[in-house]
Amino acid sequence: MYWEKEIETMPREELMKLQEQRLQKTLEQAQKTAFYKELFRKNHLDPQKIKTLEDLRNVPPTTKEDLRNHFPYGFLAVPLEEVVRLHSSSGTTGTPTVIYHTAEDLEKWTNQVARCLYMVGVRRGDVFQNMMSYGLFTGGLGMHYGAERIGALTIPIGPGNSKRQIWFMRNFKTTVIHIIPSYALLLASIIKSEGLDPKEDLYLHTLLIGAEPHSEETRRRIEESFGAKAYNSYGLSEMNGPGVAFECVYQEGMHLWEDYYYLEVVNPETLEPCSPGEVGEILLTTLNRDATPIIRYRTRDLAYYYEEPCPCGRTHRRISRIRGRSDDMFIFRGVNIFPIQIEKVLMNIPEVASNYRIILDREDFKDTMKVEVEIKPEFFFGDLLKLERLRERIKAELRSEILVTPEVVLVEPGSLPVSEGKAVRVIDQRKM
Amino acid sequence: MYWEKEIETMPREELMKLQEQRLQKTLEQAQKTAFYKELFRKNHLDPQKIKTLEDLRNVPPTTKEDLRNHFPYGFLAVPLEEVVRLHSSSGTTGTPTVIYHTAEDLEKWTNQVARCLYMVGVRRGDVFQNMMSYGLFTGGLGMHYGAERIGALTIPIGPGNSKRQIWFMRNFKTTVIHIIPSYALLLASIIKSEGLDPKEDLYLHTLLIGAEPHSEETRRRIEESFGAKAYNSYGLSEMNGPGVAFECVYQEGMHLWEDYYYLEVVNPETLEPCSPGEVGEILLTTLNRDATPIIRYRTRDLAYYYEEPCPCGRTHRRISRIRGRSDDMFIFRGVNIFPIQIEKVLMNIPEVASNYRIILDREDFKDTMKVEVEIKPEFFFGDLLKLERLRERIKAELRSEILVTPEVVLVEPGSLPVSEGKAVRVIDQRKM
Ligand SMILES: [Zn+2]
Ligand SMILES: [Zn+2]
Repeated sequence: MYWEKEIETMPREELMKLQEQRLQKTLEQAQKTAFYKELFRKNHLDPQKIKTLEDLRNVPPTTKEDLRNHFPYGFLAVPLEEVVRLHSSSGTTGTPTVIYHTAEDLEKWTNQVARCLYMVGVRRGDVFQNMMSYGLFTGGLGMHYGAERIGALTIPIGPGNSKRQIWFMRNFKTTVIHIIPSYALLLASIIKSEGLDPKEDLYLHTLLIGAEPHSEETRRRIEESFGAKAYNSYGLSEMNGPGVAFECVYQEGMHLWEDYYYLEVVNPETLEPCSPGEVGEILLTTLNRDATPIIRYRTRDLAYYYEEPCPCGRTHRRISRIRGRSDDMFIFRGVNIFPIQIEKVLMNIPEVASNYRIILDREDFKDTMKVEVEIKPEFFFGDLLKLERLRERIKAELRSEILVTPEVVLVEPGSLPVSEGKAVRVIDQRKM
Repeated sequence: MYWEKEIETMPREELMKLQEQRLQKTLEQAQKTAFYKELFRKNHLDPQKIKTLEDLRNVPPTTKEDLRNHFPYGFLAVPLEEVVRLHSSSGTTGTPTVIYHTAEDLEKWTNQVARCLYMVGVRRGDVFQNMMSYGLFTGGLGMHYGAERIGALTIPIGPGNSKRQIWFMRNFKTTVIHIIPSYALLLASIIKSEGLDPKEDLYLHTLLIGAEPHSEETRRRIEESFGAKAYNSYGLSEMNGPGVAFECVYQEGMHLWEDYYYLEVVNPETLEPCSPGEVGEILLTTLNRDATPIIRYRTRDLAYYYEEPCPCGRTHRRISRIRGRSDDMFIFRGVNIFPIQIEKVLMNIPEVASNYRIILDREDFKDTMKVEVEIKPEFFFGDLLKLERLRERIKAELRSEILVTPEVVLVEPGSLPVSEGKAVRVIDQRKM
């Protein structure tokens, strides 16, 4: 059941001792970087005196901007010739963030991903179709190395080309796929449009879904569509990539591997620690990586942590699914809204199909929000009065979640633009 | 100088003994496959009696169609759960060819690629930007694993997005790139169009060029454009992928790793063995792979082999650059023509820029061939009479190479379509 029983079920006290021990190594590495050397100096911090996890709170958090501003080598803690890989965020604009890895770092990352896959039942003998992008993005190669370590038959197909994906899934009896959740729903509908039943005509038992925050309702839809389990995967390239935290079979929170990271959940304004169950921003400190140590990284991801032990026996803290990214949040008439709140409402309404989008605009100096929602064919081509009632219901449920009333437009299934990559849910036209 | 001195410089007699020894293992594996079991039976061959490389000639060659017809598992020699990876040809139409690998197969392939890279001077400390496609195509992942094994800093950027490629090359002081030759020429011209000098403003010392047959003239142009060495790489997914044969620093033929493959060069019609220097089709037999043994594979690649030992001290037979693929060959008014023959002529004419295409058509029941050739700006915007003379010269040189006279059209640089992937050189409109 466990990939590394001893470490996965280590009593918390021991685990925290291990963390403090590894923290010393991280601090040692950090001192070798231009960025942290200067940070410690400026803040009159003596890293030698940071002995406990408690002490760590005195170190100011590191931001994505810090990574960018100290490009390319400000965070590098080893001689360049010891680096065997770099990964980088796609960086739509400006300097990308770049993370360097030694061979040993990659080795550890591979083990970390293997641990996640093994936890949800991926084994030698499984056929693993990796639909994530290979390359600088960590999703593809990260999961690839982990699956290979386990000995699953890895099909490095990458994203897109749904017909080809389906062809491979059917011909090689694929049992596990790694996929973006919005694409999973799109893929299911394409499979159906080919006259196939994703539950009957495929061999899937597991979907690994990640790279996009999504709601519990979306996960349930994915599981129902495929008749398979879908496990939530959390990662970010600054912290290696996939495998930072992963759901166990209980599907109640994701175990964050505390031998790899020190976790804090804090109020994003005050940086005060949150209590269990209280949503805050995740801060992470690398504990098992040499080339690019990062201390108290502001992930911008919002979640809460669980205090109770998990029935699976793993002692590593669970975090909730990502409730939003502070980057994704938009402000509408003074209200902070996360797209995922809208998704949650929509995916809970049985008549709603899997695609939707949110269009923000400005009219006569006033912000407007329109939510376009695809309706399943059996409901769309029905009674107009019923449709109107459905529209009112969606409006009301959205209002009770986000506290403002958007315009709601019901549209024919298949009429909104689709993406085989990350879905674009919010179109903000107010900025022009 | 050598990655594995003993094996790379092994006296030929010993090397052949090693081949015969490994051939036994290949035959043993082959007998476990549905395809070869049936092939041996049908041809009344007792694989136990195939003892020498000579004996192997009695086995009928295997074709791409055989691989396709016995999809998916007809060539699989190990239990499926021992397979950890599959790769597949892109397969524009129909069933792709699929090759399976055990963990040990991948390990050996990685070593094979590392051997190639080391041979041309790639080392720990190099920055290797891999511009080949990652995924089912073997070019990306194959070279990636080899470079990682050597300990070079690997940038898994994949193909395309030239501006980003240039940004990475400049910011990370990339020393080695892996690139399709036609794209290398395009990239050089894009670098120049950004006001940079590929020789002065980059840090490259080595280009690994492959995945597309190309002429010596193209290689020389690439080397001149970048002021760096360009080494020819040969591989095909059926034989793992990149690393089957690779040029050494003498750049006179590619060493084909004979501990991995048994090489034959044969007349494609009669299958009679060719003598050294005589162009024929390359047949390859895997000698170092468990999951997918292939015997006497008809690569469709045309080349000759060298008999003389190489001054580098490696004893593994050299093959010439690929002179064409029997698939690429087109028949024009009864004459067999390879696009690379035309490329060779064009790239030898200093006024010609790097892009060209060949358009075949039919007019009044007669085949026509038009060769569109981009001319360098300094010549194109010059004396019309000179241009006309150049056109006549190109025509004459083409005629002397391909024995027919095509129409030649000189076009402005940048006016022909370009590709960041494999170049499309021949447009055959006769088939409509
Ligand atoms: Zn658990
Ligand atoms: Zn040599």
